[in-house]
Amino acid sequence: MGEKIKVGVIGAGRIGKIHASNIIKNFPDVEVKAIADICADNIREWAVGLGISTVYDDYKKIIEDPEITAVIICSSTNTHSQITIEAAQAGKHIFCEKPIDYDVDRIHAALAAVKKAGVKFQVGFNRRFDHNFKKVKELIQSGEIGDVQIVKVVSRDPAPPPIEYVKVSGGMFLDMTIHDFDMVRYLTGSEVTEVYANAGVLVDQAIGEAGDVDTALISLKLKNGAIGMIDNCRKAVYGYDQRVEVLGTKGAISVGNDTPTTVVVSTEDAVVNDKPKYFFLERYMESFEAEMKDFFYSIAHDTETVVSGIDGLKPVLIGIAAQKSYKEGKPIRLEE
Amino acid sequence: MGEKIKVGVIGAGRIGKIHASNIIKNFPDVEVKAIADICADNIREWAVGLGISTVYDDYKKIIEDPEITAVIICSSTNTHSQITIEAAQAGKHIFCEKPIDYDVDRIHAALAAVKKAGVKFQVGFNRRFDHNFKKVKELIQSGEIGDVQIVKVVSRDPAPPPIEYVKVSGGMFLDMTIHDFDMVRYLTGSEVTEVYANAGVLVDQAIGEAGDVDTALISLKLKNGAIGMIDNCRKAVYGYDQRVEVLGTKGAISVGNDTPTTVVVSTEDAVVNDKPKYFFLERYMESFEAEMKDFFYSIAHDTETVVSGIDGLKPVLIGIAAQKSYKEGKPIRLEE
Amino acid sequence: MGEKIKVGVIGAGRIGKIHASNIIKNFPDVEVKAIADICADNIREWAVGLGISTVYDDYKKIIEDPEITAVIICSSTNTHSQITIEAAQAGKHIFCEKPIDYDVDRIHAALAAVKKAGVKFQVGFNRRFDHNFKKVKELIQSGEIGDVQIVKVVSRDPAPPPIEYVKVSGGMFLDMTIHDFDMVRYLTGSEVTEVYANAGVLVDQAIGEAGDVDTALISLKLKNGAIGMIDNCRKAVYGYDQRVEVLGTKGAISVGNDTPTTVVVSTEDAVVNDKPKYFFLERYMESFEAEMKDFFYSIAHDTETVVSGIDGLKPVLIGIAAQKSYKEGKPIRLEE
Amino acid sequence: MGEKIKVGVIGAGRIGKIHASNIIKNFPDVEVKAIADICADNIREWAVGLGISTVYDDYKKIIEDPEITAVIICSSTNTHSQITIEAAQAGKHIFCEKPIDYDVDRIHAALAAVKKAGVKFQVGFNRRFDHNFKKVKELIQSGEIGDVQIVKVVSRDPAPPPIEYVKVSGGMFLDMTIHDFDMVRYLTGSEVTEVYANAGVLVDQAIGEAGDVDTALISLKLKNGAIGMIDNCRKAVYGYDQRVEVLGTKGAISVGNDTPTTVVVSTEDAVVNDKPKYFFLERYMESFEAEMKDFFYSIAHDTETVVSGIDGLKPVLIGIAAQKSYKEGKPIRLEE
Repeated sequence: MGEKIKVGVIGAGRIGKIHASNIIKNFPDVEVKAIADICADNIREWAVGLGISTVYDDYKKIIEDPEITAVIICSSTNTHSQITIEAAQAGKHIFCEKPIDYDVDRIHAALAAVKKAGVKFQVGFNRRFDHNFKKVKELIQSGEIGDVQIVKVVSRDPAPPPIEYVKVSGGMFLDMTIHDFDMVRYLTGSEVTEVYANAGVLVDQAIGEAGDVDTALISLKLKNGAIGMIDNCRKAVYGYDQRVEVLGTKGAISVGNDTPTTVVVSTEDAVVNDKPKYFFLERYMESFEAEMKDFFYSIAHDTETVVSGIDGLKPVLIGIAAQKSYKEGKPIRLEE
Repeated sequence: MGEKIKVGVIGAGRIGKIHASNIIKNFPDVEVKAIADICADNIREWAVGLGISTVYDDYKKIIEDPEITAVIICSSTNTHSQITIEAAQAGKHIFCEKPIDYDVDRIHAALAAVKKAGVKFQVGFNRRFDHNFKKVKELIQSGEIGDVQIVKVVSRDPAPPPIEYVKVSGGMFLDMTIHDFDMVRYLTGSEVTEVYANAGVLVDQAIGEAGDVDTALISLKLKNGAIGMIDNCRKAVYGYDQRVEVLGTKGAISVGNDTPTTVVVSTEDAVVNDKPKYFFLERYMESFEAEMKDFFYSIAHDTETVVSGIDGLKPVLIGIAAQKSYKEGKPIRLEE
Repeated sequence: MGEKIKVGVIGAGRIGKIHASNIIKNFPDVEVKAIADICADNIREWAVGLGISTVYDDYKKIIEDPEITAVIICSSTNTHSQITIEAAQAGKHIFCEKPIDYDVDRIHAALAAVKKAGVKFQVGFNRRFDHNFKKVKELIQSGEIGDVQIVKVVSRDPAPPPIEYVKVSGGMFLDMTIHDFDMVRYLTGSEVTEVYANAGVLVDQAIGEAGDVDTALISLKLKNGAIGMIDNCRKAVYGYDQRVEVLGTKGAISVGNDTPTTVVVSTEDAVVNDKPKYFFLERYMESFEAEMKDFFYSIAHDTETVVSGIDGLKPVLIGIAAQKSYKEGKPIRLEE
Repeated sequence: MGEKIKVGVIGAGRIGKIHASNIIKNFPDVEVKAIADICADNIREWAVGLGISTVYDDYKKIIEDPEITAVIICSSTNTHSQITIEAAQAGKHIFCEKPIDYDVDRIHAALAAVKKAGVKFQVGFNRRFDHNFKKVKELIQSGEIGDVQIVKVVSRDPAPPPIEYVKVSGGMFLDMTIHDFDMVRYLTGSEVTEVYANAGVLVDQAIGEAGDVDTALISLKLKNGAIGMIDNCRKAVYGYDQRVEVLGTKGAISVGNDTPTTVVVSTEDAVVNDKPKYFFLERYMESFEAEMKDFFYSIAHDTETVVSGIDGLKPVLIGIAAQKSYKEGKPIRLEE
């Protein structure tokens, strides 16, 4: 085993904490050398408890540390592209939470900086690393169901985020559906060429007043001829609903929800099963570790990252097209 | 118990035979007095075996028989509206297989004749009588899941019909999806206001050459604000796939496929469940009897039929809009 | 097709009515010429409604009718063996509801009469004709799971019968488990050599006071070396629980309960599935028709009945052994 | 937070390694100060990789280390009781893998030493900490299904252990079923009063020649009146089968197998689900961590361990009774 990879974590909100903790627990060959957060004081105790002694309030300190060879960008979305550029210029490998940016030009600038620097760059589309969806991908790739004809994603949250969050979220298509756009690209290995968003405000009128939608069925055309559909809702009272179905010429694949247990209770009233795991933290916890593993592997073995810069860009382009489709009430073609 | 209802069955193809046989077996208060088919000789032995002694090659004989008070129209689609008009004029109650016609004007003419005559008229949307879908309807009506937000129908055939049939079928949207348009109306109790058809030829190029599609995801807007999606394919190699999902403000309902058995076989290779029941005859057999029961009930008790003339008209209008949407590549609004 | 088979139904309780009605509906080549019941007056209207004009209060009238070639014995259990003897002596084919008798000597006498007369004899173990269990049998026979090692039957009623019935039922092992003993023999094609009954009164103390048990786990040894277990309870509040599991050297088969629908309702509280079909009438209705079909087939084609006299005898012997095992608290071997 | 708990791990076979690794990863307040294994050289590299610098070949070094306050005994079964005694005398808290011993007197001696020393003692019945079974226990305790009437455990291995292992295993009832005896006690909170073992050699004749059985249905009577059944097989070709069913006066609970994914593949041939997770390492990994958590909690908070010395003794007594039952062919009562 060579030297440890030294990383700096930028942003210690919920997901930043998860990544930092996962690295410390599960990657003996990686060291979290420093963590930066604009509210450094709030996280100091947590960091020390984990064994991270260096806590900055300015991420530039991490960029400037020559011993740190990789950064995990978990700060607020509007800072992703800028920090990516600075980290790339400093020659650091980059794991960047999704989305890279809501602004396409800024994404291009970030990707250009990454390209120029020749550093590894991975976007945090963690669902690609989920046990269920990974298996679907493998089955499709193995030819098990022939050529893909229809791909369908159900992705519903248990409850809408606070309205303050909705207002700055970039809209449901960029905030929530972006994962599903990535899933469609990941599973089919093809590009979306057209998008039509059938959507509405059916959960909370306040979301509509904030200029957003909360429920959508998004119709997709793919380059390989297949057609697709994404089903989103900000509120599914029974829990976090994360499913996929794929129909191919030789068969179909479906993925149901994960549940906390397999317990079934039968009484005079009903036969009751577990609800889905509550939300993304419970549901996707293992994938957060798996994506890190992959990131560090690509650094250690100098391989391509599994989720590239283009993979970060494309879903944003589709999301913007979906917004336009909804506004104009017609399908929108994506440019080549 | 009063006198028997005497019926005449017009058209003794597959579905005509099923209706005739069901009536004889299950409705002691109904008598199949005569059956008519343009190939009368071919069905005589079958008819006599069932105890139907009168077999005509001209359906007009049935229309002219004053003892016959109800007709079951199972002849080819292009004759439905004409026979409906004649039967109505002769004062007979009418059960008419779907669709009433592919021509909207002819449907209007048929419905006008029915209205004028004041006879009962029921269209053969048998899936409304299916145990699964009926339960979904009841649950929605009872308020179990609150207001409907999303309704989704999966309806895939195990194999495409002969290409000769495809050519005269009226197209997939009118031949196959028509059932699903009815299902959406039935379950939601609301009307479709806009339709967008994302479709393609992914199963068999010959279907495309015949001017039809074989795979589609059809996006719907409903008057009550809900949105919907229908998933169709002419070929699902694993069998007849008939499912529904509804999301509401208080919960969700889903319906899976019926299977021949509940047997699960676990071996070194796999854990194997039954495939869905093979096709519509196996899957919906019980519903064919249930719709007849309802038809005779409405005659005997002078009540409204459950599937009215309007219910026959609307899915045709939606289907035509879907065709237009596919051709023009944009959503089509339905007129009020 | 030759002449119709003319049958007489003896006993018009619940199951007698089902058989009579099934024959009339589904077997055009069979005629129910007469029906006999000790309360003839009570059933006359029902019989006439079905088209059976001859209703006797004395079953001997049926035995004496030379035109009747087969009888369906559905009278109370204590009359089965005597009527079987008389019917056999009159040369009639016999379908006899289970059990033939609680008294082994009387069963032997009945079977001897049947043998001497050379008539067809079928016992009403209808579950052999159930779609689920038949499929299990076929899979075992086809070698799909190799040699059978373990066979397990779950058979629980939704609610105990009236205590008056319990008192004359012959005890749970002969009244209820008898079907499960038959199922074990049917599925494995092997004979039970030893039985150990672990049982108790856990549902209703009144059942214990009547000298019976209401809950049991019955351990079995089979001639082919396999071992088995039957799980019975007089009261499963969630409904009629009818399952089977078989483990073999190459795999396992399991059968779950049939449900009225495949509807799943997900709310904030729970994910709810249908309970099992309520009781044996709903659950096994189709098997009552299937066993009749088989009986008439064996008459028409002079073949062996699928459920023979020995199949009627053996479960009674096992049931008696189970009673003894429970009383003596030890395994009981069955004599060859 | 106070000082770290310093532990010594005794025995670094498969399970010892899992415990050591789990502690290091997941319990920042616990330190693995040393590890002992008779083949110390073989594990040194592994230990150092984990950050454990002290590796002994003699467990007594751990016993003698005054800084070590707790030991994790994972050595071979025949050493458990002796090491327990020595560790207790040295005042160390003890986590001991199951079984404590196959000899009842030696178990008593070990438990006496534990009691005298007043140290914590927990036996490694990890399944009590499994997400599924824990939920079952909670539901029973909450009264959800009323009084327990029937409890059934299915516990089948994917493949038999090497015959050399079988010979020294103590026999299937003590090696494998012991977990299931514990499960019955855990779920019901009641004691087994009688056991009847219906068993055989149906998997591999060599197992029979070694004096053991490989397939069993074990019937149980419980102090609270409930009855139970354990279903064991050394070889279920479809994988590790770990299920439980409980019937109570107000309902039933069942637990199915965990699977790697929820993927379902439907093709022309079959509808295929995942097989169960392959074996106990995959299936129960999370429970090994959970039991450690509980052990350290009981040390830190001076509470009773969840799996006590009596819980270690009782399953051995039941296993010995099962062996006797099998040998003598009759039910065996357990003494109070």
